[in-house]
Amino acid sequence: MTCADGSADVAAEMSRHGGNLAAARRAFPRAPEPWIDLSTGISPYAYPFGDLPSACFTRLPEADAEAALLGAARAAYAAPADVAIVAAPGTQILIQLLPRILPARRVAVVGPTYGEHAAAWIAGGSAVTEAPALDAAGDADVVVLVNPNNPDGRLVASADLLDEAARLARRGATLVVDEAFVDVIPGASLLSAGLPDNVLVLRSFGKTYGLAGVRLGFALGSADRIGRLRALLGPWAVPGPALEIGRRALSDTDWSKRLVGRLVADAEKLDALLVAAGLRVVGGTPLFRLAEAPEAAAWFDRLAAAGVLVRPFSYRSDWLRFGIPGEGDWARVNAVLSG
Amino acid sequence: MTCADGSADVAAEMSRHGGNLAAARRAFPRAPEPWIDLSTGISPYAYPFGDLPSACFTRLPEADAEAALLGAARAAYAAPADVAIVAAPGTQILIQLLPRILPARRVAVVGPTYGEHAAAWIAGGSAVTEAPALDAAGDADVVVLVNPNNPDGRLVASADLLDEAARLARRGATLVVDEAFVDVIPGASLLSAGLPDNVLVLRSFGKTYGLAGVRLGFALGSADRIGRLRALLGPWAVPGPALEIGRRALSDTDWSKRLVGRLVADAEKLDALLVAAGLRVVGGTPLFRLAEAPEAAAWFDRLAAAGVLVRPFSYRSDWLRFGIPGEGDWARVNAVLSG
Repeated sequence: MTCADGSADVAAEMSRHGGNLAAARRAFPRAPEPWIDLSTGISPYAYPFGDLPSACFTRLPEADAEAALLGAARAAYAAPADVAIVAAPGTQILIQLLPRILPARRVAVVGPTYGEHAAAWIAGGSAVTEAPALDAAGDADVVVLVNPNNPDGRLVASADLLDEAARLARRGATLVVDEAFVDVIPGASLLSAGLPDNVLVLRSFGKTYGLAGVRLGFALGSADRIGRLRALLGPWAVPGPALEIGRRALSDTDWSKRLVGRLVADAEKLDALLVAAGLRVVGGTPLFRLAEAPEAAAWFDRLAAAGVLVRPFSYRSDWLRFGIPGEGDWARVNAVLSG
Repeated sequence: MTCADGSADVAAEMSRHGGNLAAARRAFPRAPEPWIDLSTGISPYAYPFGDLPSACFTRLPEADAEAALLGAARAAYAAPADVAIVAAPGTQILIQLLPRILPARRVAVVGPTYGEHAAAWIAGGSAVTEAPALDAAGDADVVVLVNPNNPDGRLVASADLLDEAARLARRGATLVVDEAFVDVIPGASLLSAGLPDNVLVLRSFGKTYGLAGVRLGFALGSADRIGRLRALLGPWAVPGPALEIGRRALSDTDWSKRLVGRLVADAEKLDALLVAAGLRVVGGTPLFRLAEAPEAAAWFDRLAAAGVLVRPFSYRSDWLRFGIPGEGDWARVNAVLSG
């Protein structure tokens, strides 16, 4: 490898989060431009939100605009009427606020999974353990499940979640379900099954709608807990453009239905390329595929040298996560994988 | 008054914050459209930021884009090199985070002033007192000053602030200076005078640049404290469009210089109208004017019935705050005031 020195650094940086193209560019300065960023689970099909009225930018976000966004989100997520909802500038800030509304001595995060959950609870002073499965959470006060899981795509059925929530309720514990990738798996959201009082659900906007820069996420749960999140977020937490873009996109059910079909087909196509390259597809969702190979590190370098950024994992050096390529990117991705 | 029932409600709602046109519309349904919103201190001259690259919306905000924004802010604010800076999606969230990085039993807020400071410290568990002046802060662990003050425009000179900061440092106390409106008063920022370690400065983007919907604010202070704010904000706290718009606007020093001249002239013109109407101008900044009149409540109703929203104050029923009218709005404002 010509870029061996840089690649270890960028792999370490990428292991925390995807999406850092600038670091990849510094590590692989000779890679062809433009880079193809497959290091995140963000859809390549950005919702075409059209022109934004200038008032989105110039005026303070108004309560009516926020209410319209929340109405669109409720409908898109099929949220039961008795479930409360709050919008935030990205799900990340909600993850960071959870320890402040759910005091917990012991927290179990079902994993390995998205690293920011454990980080937030540790920062909040809780003792955090990683549970290998939902029913192995011990006596935790709060159990966190990413469903479907990132990066392996493992999906727990709503019926099993409700059983577990009932068990947790009996000892006063809370279940947090991060449904960041559930949009693209019809019927998989716990919201369609109803929401017990001791369950809190997080939903993300930017991944499905290909608009991660907008920063928009939601928490749904009991009126009391959602009210406390709202108070912590304070007034005008969601910028005007995000209120408008989110409302438009979440109201467009035809578009999101077509999207799912498209992503499912893309995921199958990507799997075929990965398998043909000798990688094993061990999981994923229609927004990302998890590939396993003993030579994953060499694949990371080979892809990066060709300007294709994927996601390595510090805890599994034989894993690489691939996002879905954009329409014009398949040929280059195919060329590296089959090269 | 035809709308007397509604006006008390809307006045109460407006007393917490300006900018709620929807509430005003409900209370004054017969007011002519479009409403002229003078209830905030947001400039009517929105910075013409141009077209935004789609990557602002589609990609996760990148570290390099944030660094470019912070560089532009440092230059615009003349921040000394040894002062650390962090960007947030609006100053409001920074106000709410301060109690988490500055544990304080007693907090003195110099006031009356912007209400969210006291609210945040109270929510954080501090005992909050309102101090009539900076040197009357008693033995508070944290002293908060909005400079220039909102709504009366009172400005404490940097030399006096540095003296007070030194006094506070001797007993381990911290000074928070919210410079939300300082952009339009050249030379008034404490940053040009240097920043002792026990001082934290807040700067707001949206008011000066007429882009309050973008949500962008900054905190400047010691590396330790700013680092803790950064950790609490977490990754991707500032949306992609805000990073790009903020960088462009804060780099455009010619535009902001012209703006100040324009706003100063507008403020003089507005003062003349207010005085001619029999109101007394008792303070303000080039972004808002504070008027005093025994019949302020009647003025609020008369203006609202004509579709002009201004800002009343629950604690001073004889005060009204007027923002600067936009270019096409002067004739209507003049007509109500002189009618």
